[in-house]
Amino acid sequence: MNTIITIARQYGSGGREVGQKLAQILGVNCYDRSLLSLAAEKSGLSVEALQHAEEKAASSLLYTLVMSSNMYHSSVDQFNVPINDKLFCAQSEIIREIAEKESCVIVGRCADYVLSEHTRLVKVFLYADFEERVKRICTELSVTEAEARDKIIKTDKRRANYYNYYTSRKWGKVDNYDLALATDKIGIDAAARFIADYAKIAYPNE
Amino acid sequence: MNTIITIARQYGSGGREVGQKLAQILGVNCYDRSLLSLAAEKSGLSVEALQHAEEKAASSLLYTLVMSSNMYHSSVDQFNVPINDKLFCAQSEIIREIAEKESCVIVGRCADYVLSEHTRLVKVFLYADFEERVKRICTELSVTEAEARDKIIKTDKRRANYYNYYTSRKWGKVDNYDLALATDKIGIDAAARFIADYAKIAYPNE
Repeated sequence: MNTIITIARQYGSGGREVGQKLAQILGVNCYDRSLLSLAAEKSGLSVEALQHAEEKAASSLLYTLVMSSNMYHSSVDQFNVPINDKLFCAQSEIIREIAEKESCVIVGRCADYVLSEHTRLVKVFLYADFEERVKRICTELSVTEAEARDKIIKTDKRRANYYNYYTSRKWGKVDNYDLALATDKIGIDAAARFIADYAKIAYPNE
Repeated sequence: MNTIITIARQYGSGGREVGQKLAQILGVNCYDRSLLSLAAEKSGLSVEALQHAEEKAASSLLYTLVMSSNMYHSSVDQFNVPINDKLFCAQSEIIREIAEKESCVIVGRCADYVLSEHTRLVKVFLYADFEERVKRICTELSVTEAEARDKIIKTDKRRANYYNYYTSRKWGKVDNYDLALATDKIGIDAAARFIADYAKIAYPNE
């Protein structure tokens, strides 16, 4: 049976990097935005359309409005399925196929919810002090502090809305995860090693 | 500078045991209910009176009511300070004195909040699947499943109310901690080792 580690993460906490390091340590694949192109392939929609769908709506009211208005505008396919729903379904199907096939790390995409019946699942939430995230985003994207703050707030809102909408759980609520870790105190590499240790202890027979 | 590890914990998640193992690993003291007798000594009240005060009120409305009614009933000292406030203040003072004196582990008592200005602080929250906690409490206290469930729900409510009342933070909210860990998947010993590792990485010069 494969062991799957899912990583949900606050924007700017280094979640993608931790996921990649972790996958390296364990010698498995790390799936993150790459799932978008697999979903595009599966659904027959373009990556750009899916990306656009994923980035829509920053408040939960807006999210619901956009989701329903999709029914009557351009973002529907020939069966009138909103593009966001189509994206979520295609991604979920791919996540389940991958989990069936191989041990891996999956960053984002509500994977902890999609795979909740999987018997060897380690659900991780990564976060960090807000000011540390601002510094990180400033350096990474070469933006001003104000721009970084704005991007962090909006991205986290979007992630929370997306997760809460599709899972009926609450993004970042501790009970949804096995391990929640502040990355800023120990750094990316140590965080990755930590999660690898946790997974090996939780599921030692792999 | 001393390193302090604070452990907040859901009832039945094995928090006290993790705290003790952790203290053993690090070669430091672990303070939990023992703080009550130190607080009794400091405040001049009996341990029983403090224990009774600590166990009062299971809903947040009730908590507030009890807290204010204390002003007019028997649970006040000669200066009309509610006994719960007196307990909180005495404990907080002792926690700060200990943190000044030695590296240690402190279980409960809002220590993460009391020491929030401490520069070498690792704030941990321990939790576990509800059904696993029921099993644990049944074995530990030799009670029925129904009694265990009832005790877990009431104790967690009390802990949350106590914490939320005195700190204006939210008990169990991930951002208040550096590390949140489900103990049921890895067990008490591994959880203790984990926290020790985290502390050593976060504050390596000790």
